[in-house]
Amino acid sequence: MTDLTLISETTCFGGTIGFYSHTSKACNGTMKFSVYQPPQAKTRSLPVLYFLSGLTCTEENFMAKAGAQQFAAQHGLVLVAPDTSPRDTGIPGEDADWDFGTGAGFYVDATTEPWQKHYRMYSYVVEELPALIAQNFPVTDRQGIFGHSMGGHGALVCALRNPDRYQSVSAFAPIAAPMQCAWGQKAFSNYLGDNTEDWRRYDASQLVRVAPYPRMILIDQGRSDRFLTSQLLPQEFEKACAEVGQSLNLRMQEGYDHSYYFIATFMEDHIQHHAEALYGSD
Amino acid sequence: MTDLTLISETTCFGGTIGFYSHTSKACNGTMKFSVYQPPQAKTRSLPVLYFLSGLTCTEENFMAKAGAQQFAAQHGLVLVAPDTSPRDTGIPGEDADWDFGTGAGFYVDATTEPWQKHYRMYSYVVEELPALIAQNFPVTDRQGIFGHSMGGHGALVCALRNPDRYQSVSAFAPIAAPMQCAWGQKAFSNYLGDNTEDWRRYDASQLVRVAPYPRMILIDQGRSDRFLTSQLLPQEFEKACAEVGQSLNLRMQEGYDHSYYFIATFMEDHIQHHAEALYGSD
Repeated sequence: MTDLTLISETTCFGGTIGFYSHTSKACNGTMKFSVYQPPQAKTRSLPVLYFLSGLTCTEENFMAKAGAQQFAAQHGLVLVAPDTSPRDTGIPGEDADWDFGTGAGFYVDATTEPWQKHYRMYSYVVEELPALIAQNFPVTDRQGIFGHSMGGHGALVCALRNPDRYQSVSAFAPIAAPMQCAWGQKAFSNYLGDNTEDWRRYDASQLVRVAPYPRMILIDQGRSDRFLTSQLLPQEFEKACAEVGQSLNLRMQEGYDHSYYFIATFMEDHIQHHAEALYGSD
Repeated sequence: MTDLTLISETTCFGGTIGFYSHTSKACNGTMKFSVYQPPQAKTRSLPVLYFLSGLTCTEENFMAKAGAQQFAAQHGLVLVAPDTSPRDTGIPGEDADWDFGTGAGFYVDATTEPWQKHYRMYSYVVEELPALIAQNFPVTDRQGIFGHSMGGHGALVCALRNPDRYQSVSAFAPIAAPMQCAWGQKAFSNYLGDNTEDWRRYDASQLVRVAPYPRMILIDQGRSDRFLTSQLLPQEFEKACAEVGQSLNLRMQEGYDHSYYFIATFMEDHIQHHAEALYGSD
């Protein structure tokens, strides 16, 4: 048992949402996350589905606004939503920007000073958090991962680099080619340094060219999303997938924007996508 | 056409959520509300279902957290959620308390100074807002009303006093006997004065004794709600209903608290309850 602290607990769709904090080794400080255990978790171990949130979010947004619990309860999946960065690390300037530092960890392991001491969200999400979840919650070793915007980027990167750990992946409006957009360039240059060769392992459109994901990737993207052509660039990821024969279901959704109202609308389809893979026999 | 201002608009479950402001006559100033128009509203007029929110809420909480849109889209109902009070009226002390003044209009027409100039949420909800909705949105004259906590109280009061205007009513964890709890006593004494006779027309447990509602009332209440025995008192309402033969389905839900996670869990049942009445033939 680790130093897991239960902050609050609430009942939802017959199951339990818990908010937790713990001391993270990867991030060298306190991290928070939330877990939804559906009713089935009272009697057996279940597959677990990770949701990575977007810029400025915490471990709460997904639980409060995405409407995922009802479908997780239908299919028997544990949901886990980590915070989007370390907080209150004392690094100068960590709170200065909304798209960098606090709330904007970008799911990378920083290699530059002063960020590398705390901003190691990739290792946190892929290694430390799943080990913690396995120790403390009734989960099997089957895992899926999805996310929104910066978290969609994170989900694609985690799955593409670890296809054996994640049996399923999907994304809502992901930052699909971060090396080619301002958000990604700002984050990567500050967290990883100026050598763009080092950026490739955190760019889904680069990664998929090197090693495609063995199963279909589902992406929903609103056509009225104001970040579509400036920051998200799903067509770059689509092009890369086409080049290497990656199976991709990219659905351009007419009228939808970048909000949780968009996410909630297509949540049922995404949970279904993950449940099929996580309860499948591959 | 009135001075309705569209603040923002977003697509959700095939329909549209709009946030609006307008100059309210009843409240003598600017009021805000939100409307969800499901896909069916593009081609025909629909019944409308009002949701009254609880203490500290705005017109946004319900739309963002209750998960109602998917079920309104299934059944073909327009959803309307007003703010919980006037704001920035300039009345001294309006922002001093979280359970009185701003965010706590209690759905009464204030009769005392200085509140009576602006705090007239009962007339706003029952008269002005429905007229405005009828003028500007594709709705029929069939209306239902529901709400949470202070808004559950408001919904019960509006329906009990106007059974011909509201064909259906339900509530989540309503303040069911406000004359007997601290929240209600504080609000009523300040908004209505010290004559408790004047309080009766805003107390569901009093109103139902005088004139029962002609159809079944649905109430969900969490057993782990920390306000259950101090402020909400559903058993007082249950007792009053039993005395006069009011049809009531009061469901005590094991493990649930006072949060939107509780509301979201039982939202489908409530929308179903209203849809049956609003599309029925009474």
